[in-house]
Amino acid sequence: MVRQLAVIGVGLIGGSLARALRQVGEVGEVVGCGRGKPNLEKAVELGVIDRYTHDVGEAVERADLVFLAVPLGAMKNAFTDMKGHLAEDAIITDGGSAKRSVIDDCKEGLGYLPPGFVPGHPIVGTENSGVEASFPELYQNRRIILTPTEETAPDALERVEAIWRACGAEVTRMSVEHHDEVLAATSHLPHMLAFGLVDALARMKENDEIFRYAAGGFRDFTRIASSNPVMWRDICVANPVALSEMMEHYIAEMSDLASIIRDGDGDKLLEIFTRAKDARDRYIDGALNSPE
Amino acid sequence: MVRQLAVIGVGLIGGSLARALRQVGEVGEVVGCGRGKPNLEKAVELGVIDRYTHDVGEAVERADLVFLAVPLGAMKNAFTDMKGHLAEDAIITDGGSAKRSVIDDCKEGLGYLPPGFVPGHPIVGTENSGVEASFPELYQNRRIILTPTEETAPDALERVEAIWRACGAEVTRMSVEHHDEVLAATSHLPHMLAFGLVDALARMKENDEIFRYAAGGFRDFTRIASSNPVMWRDICVANPVALSEMMEHYIAEMSDLASIIRDGDGDKLLEIFTRAKDARDRYIDGALNSPE
Repeated sequence: MVRQLAVIGVGLIGGSLARALRQVGEVGEVVGCGRGKPNLEKAVELGVIDRYTHDVGEAVERADLVFLAVPLGAMKNAFTDMKGHLAEDAIITDGGSAKRSVIDDCKEGLGYLPPGFVPGHPIVGTENSGVEASFPELYQNRRIILTPTEETAPDALERVEAIWRACGAEVTRMSVEHHDEVLAATSHLPHMLAFGLVDALARMKENDEIFRYAAGGFRDFTRIASSNPVMWRDICVANPVALSEMMEHYIAEMSDLASIIRDGDGDKLLEIFTRAKDARDRYIDGALNSPE
Repeated sequence: MVRQLAVIGVGLIGGSLARALRQVGEVGEVVGCGRGKPNLEKAVELGVIDRYTHDVGEAVERADLVFLAVPLGAMKNAFTDMKGHLAEDAIITDGGSAKRSVIDDCKEGLGYLPPGFVPGHPIVGTENSGVEASFPELYQNRRIILTPTEETAPDALERVEAIWRACGAEVTRMSVEHHDEVLAATSHLPHMLAFGLVDALARMKENDEIFRYAAGGFRDFTRIASSNPVMWRDICVANPVALSEMMEHYIAEMSDLASIIRDGDGDKLLEIFTRAKDARDRYIDGALNSPE
């Protein structure tokens, strides 16, 4: 049971955690914090939060759980603003999609890594945003990765795990480095490929015509290139090492494929495409991807 | 009005043309041709074709319209088998997704480029296949690209245009080279990126775990990696020059992006992502992509 939850950043991610905990009766008061007054008033109106403040320090003052759901680029300031205001036994967790950078931001902003800080990342889509898009079932059967630091207290980690499980999520622990690599591969890299493809085509002459002949496959493939550019800039800035390494790895794979195509090596192409199709059918559409 | 239509390859593409022409009363008899007896019997049962033969020569013998809807890898043999059997005034068109290779296959198989040959490519999804997936509305409001050769007779071109328009499609004329470049950019390249990504991840150690953390964006992005490997091998073999050039172009774009990420140049990243998002929102979800 959370007595007082402070949600810093009341959007899809933050709003859905508040709604989920309310739905299972696991939270007392919810205090929202953000910059935009209309959004916060909307959140009160929707019953997502009980009250709000624009002051992070005030928001966390009496909270036993702080959930940081601001963009990666705003994490450091949020930690700085918490300094001197956190309750001694407060549990702090976050929803940032890169973890090394959030931990560094905490250390720089607060000046230390509190034992109550449990860095986390819920693996959910971010196509929609804003508190109006939030809903209590967002985390049901979704994976949450927690990446405890060396300073994280075991009971803080267990408490955060229990909170996410109460929302219906499946929780996994992972090292910070491993998280940043896995996410670089499965999320950050695909976004770069889609942004890069659309940008490359948009900069070609006659791009109007080129896009006109794009069919359904292209639409699906490039859907993620409609994601929020600011959010993705922040992610790239937050996870540059794992992401650029993954990109180099991929570029090498593409260079090999281009030369196989130039050589007209049909057998090799069939081998690659078959392996890819099998992997996708097995892992993505199959049972392995769903937690249950 | 088509008196006798020969559909060589009775699947989604060939079957849907027959169904569409029947629906608007623009075809007399439909003769199907293929290798698999169960599929052809199914096509008769569904009313897609009136009768069938396994012999291409026999199928085209009395046809005033021949529609070649076999995989790219089977085009040359189909043309070879037509030799000496085509009616003098027969119109021949096809549905191959690369055009230079089909024209070369015609020249080699038949020994010449008949004035009635109008190479074509309907831009429709190919996620489903087989005659059971065919339906008369497949081509409605979809784009058909025709790439006449120097030998193509103007009246043959007009006739094929009229046939596709009768099916509700929008028809565009394009040079062979331009078609193969545009399709390399909008279809063939994205498929290579998706196949390449899934294959690269599948070959990494701990790939089970990596796929487990793939979220919705990854699923959409890699959907086309579940496409038919044989079909895509054939397309790569049929369009190696334009496709490998487009891949090199893209690889250079990705290398630039990787170094911008390594440098942490947030402004530049924001510029690229914003341009990509704008282009996608404008061209793909906007009005420009729909013919009407």
